[in-house]
Amino acid sequence: MTFVTGLECSRCGHTAEPGRLVNTCPQCASPLLVRYDLHEVKRHLKKTDLLDRPADMWRYFEVLPLDEEEAIVTLGEGFTPLLRVGRLAAKLGLEQLYLKDEALQPTGSFKARGLSVAVSMARTLGARELCIPTAGNAGGALAAYGARAGLRTHVFMPRDTPRANYVETVLAGADVVQVDGLISDAARLMQQRMAEHGWFDCSTLKEPYRIEGKKTMGYELAEQFQWVLPDVIVYPTGGGTGLIGMWKAFAEMDELGWIDERRPRMVSVQSSGCAPIVRAFEAGAEESEFWEGAATFSSGLRVPKALGDFLILQALRESRGTAVAVSDDETYDAIREVGETEGIFLCPEGAACWAAVRALHSQGWLRPDERIVLFNTGAGHKYVDGVPQFANL
Amino acid sequence: MTFVTGLECSRCGHTAEPGRLVNTCPQCASPLLVRYDLHEVKRHLKKTDLLDRPADMWRYFEVLPLDEEEAIVTLGEGFTPLLRVGRLAAKLGLEQLYLKDEALQPTGSFKARGLSVAVSMARTLGARELCIPTAGNAGGALAAYGARAGLRTHVFMPRDTPRANYVETVLAGADVVQVDGLISDAARLMQQRMAEHGWFDCSTLKEPYRIEGKKTMGYELAEQFQWVLPDVIVYPTGGGTGLIGMWKAFAEMDELGWIDERRPRMVSVQSSGCAPIVRAFEAGAEESEFWEGAATFSSGLRVPKALGDFLILQALRESRGTAVAVSDDETYDAIREVGETEGIFLCPEGAACWAAVRALHSQGWLRPDERIVLFNTGAGHKYVDGVPQFANL
Repeated sequence: MTFVTGLECSRCGHTAEPGRLVNTCPQCASPLLVRYDLHEVKRHLKKTDLLDRPADMWRYFEVLPLDEEEAIVTLGEGFTPLLRVGRLAAKLGLEQLYLKDEALQPTGSFKARGLSVAVSMARTLGARELCIPTAGNAGGALAAYGARAGLRTHVFMPRDTPRANYVETVLAGADVVQVDGLISDAARLMQQRMAEHGWFDCSTLKEPYRIEGKKTMGYELAEQFQWVLPDVIVYPTGGGTGLIGMWKAFAEMDELGWIDERRPRMVSVQSSGCAPIVRAFEAGAEESEFWEGAATFSSGLRVPKALGDFLILQALRESRGTAVAVSDDETYDAIREVGETEGIFLCPEGAACWAAVRALHSQGWLRPDERIVLFNTGAGHKYVDGVPQFANL
Repeated sequence: MTFVTGLECSRCGHTAEPGRLVNTCPQCASPLLVRYDLHEVKRHLKKTDLLDRPADMWRYFEVLPLDEEEAIVTLGEGFTPLLRVGRLAAKLGLEQLYLKDEALQPTGSFKARGLSVAVSMARTLGARELCIPTAGNAGGALAAYGARAGLRTHVFMPRDTPRANYVETVLAGADVVQVDGLISDAARLMQQRMAEHGWFDCSTLKEPYRIEGKKTMGYELAEQFQWVLPDVIVYPTGGGTGLIGMWKAFAEMDELGWIDERRPRMVSVQSSGCAPIVRAFEAGAEESEFWEGAATFSSGLRVPKALGDFLILQALRESRGTAVAVSDDETYDAIREVGETEGIFLCPEGAACWAAVRALHSQGWLRPDERIVLFNTGAGHKYVDGVPQFANL
């Protein structure tokens, strides 16, 4: 059984029936979001029921879009550690700093969450071949879950993506197309090919289910903090699906009566080499503009224009959050500092969050007693050849 | 409080007091094992009590050697996924094949378990600087947990260790010494230096606590299989601490009344380029002989002589298990096959286990209806430059 009531356009409100393969809103081409009968979920599920369930993201099955558990394509994703990082916190006099470590995921990144749900749904709804443009980790995750599901996958990836992403994707049996350019160029090439082959487009927010997987980060944070959300969430933002997803999760949990009305201030972290959300946030704009010449070793942040930019910006503003750009030098210093201080080998995108906390702290934007969560979205091991400074170690 | 009663030599039975820093048996220099008052543990803890505990290896706190939870040095280790791999199983007509995926660990390998406990104990007992010789992953894990604990670490590593191991170890602030040679050469150099500096030796089985962390793999398997152990465990064997640890866990759980007297058949998997345990097992010997000229891309299996070899061989024989050597070509084929079939990017050591299952199946050593568990001991991402064939992908 499922509690899904339908799909709703995040921009124009148009509703669509679930139960068949869809991409974006047929009216305005904006992202579709899954809606649930949360009143019914509330009758069926208490948050204390979760305690006995396996420690993966599928413990939130009632607020996920599958009809039956047998349809799950899993590699053991979710319920990653929430680590107190006290030694790091002490550097800035912070009292309650936490790291949500998404390195401990199948395929070594947070992309596992979204692709697990998306591939499960795509297979259920009859897709046979799946395609994706990627900055790196999403391609590896699509290939992995596709293989696990017995589906063919086609991955379009910039040629300068870290080698680990290329290798993992090829090894999972994907058809990998390396593209000279950025994820936006990869997407353009994919668009040309997918229609003639009948592939299903798994680009983030161009299908409704990856965000459902990503939102489980919000459910986990709530559960791991005993249903009191933190004060600040610092999140690296490429496509921004995780941030939008967590914001959606908070609204759902509020409606379920699992949390109260308080929300964290949401912080988008980008690279100064590709910061369309930061620029739009500072300009007071509702959408971002395409960032020309994106360049940063934080490959997951090389996203010149996110389809869900307006949703990211909405969440930042509604939450009284902010957006911060950090340089690659600051990010590298953060990799070193967190490694030496806490023993955690962050991915560059995760390290950028610590650099952002340093910046926000120096601006007085953070109170020392606030509960702050950084997201490490993947394993540093996947970037060994991606960070130029590592060559000199 | 702790249920530890003392340390006991695994060879001569000599007992030693816990509560101070020790390495091997003062009488015969063999590994010391931690003994618990399991009768008291049984009075305090039911296996059903575990259900409410966090999904990490510290849920088994009563059978771990720490006095108090505050002493734990954690990065979120343990309770890794146990995945059914049905598509892979179908290739050989097996009905119940599982993979325990230790890639989802801090530092991306199973070494996190042992080093978490060892570093926690070393710090508690007053060590200030820790040292280790490593084939790769153990060095990264010692450096990480050392940093987390605020202790200095010294890691001696063959120069041809995969780059990810070197980078992760340096980034965690360790003093890394690259050695031309094997782990045995690294150990020899470390021995020369550690005495004069007063470092504490964290070599596996040269201190009593790494094995206590490793044994939690046995506890987890039992719990994940609802307290009925599988029929066969296929385990890649370098130092062999995990295998010895699981065997110890099974005996403890039997005494606790958590499992019955049935035991899995234990299978040691090695590389044909370094197979001292296989050779000793086939020769009916009680110990292995130093393997000259060890060479394999499965860097974790480049261990020419394990200190606990006699314990490994005992467990293989008591369990009516066996030992299997596979070539690097077979291992590479296994990486490809498991990647394409299940979407899992195995480390070479984990892939060797699938190659071994293929070999054992063709010999008729496995019954199709048996429950078989393969161990993937680390993330394939850490070996991107370690497997020569990857350069041609």
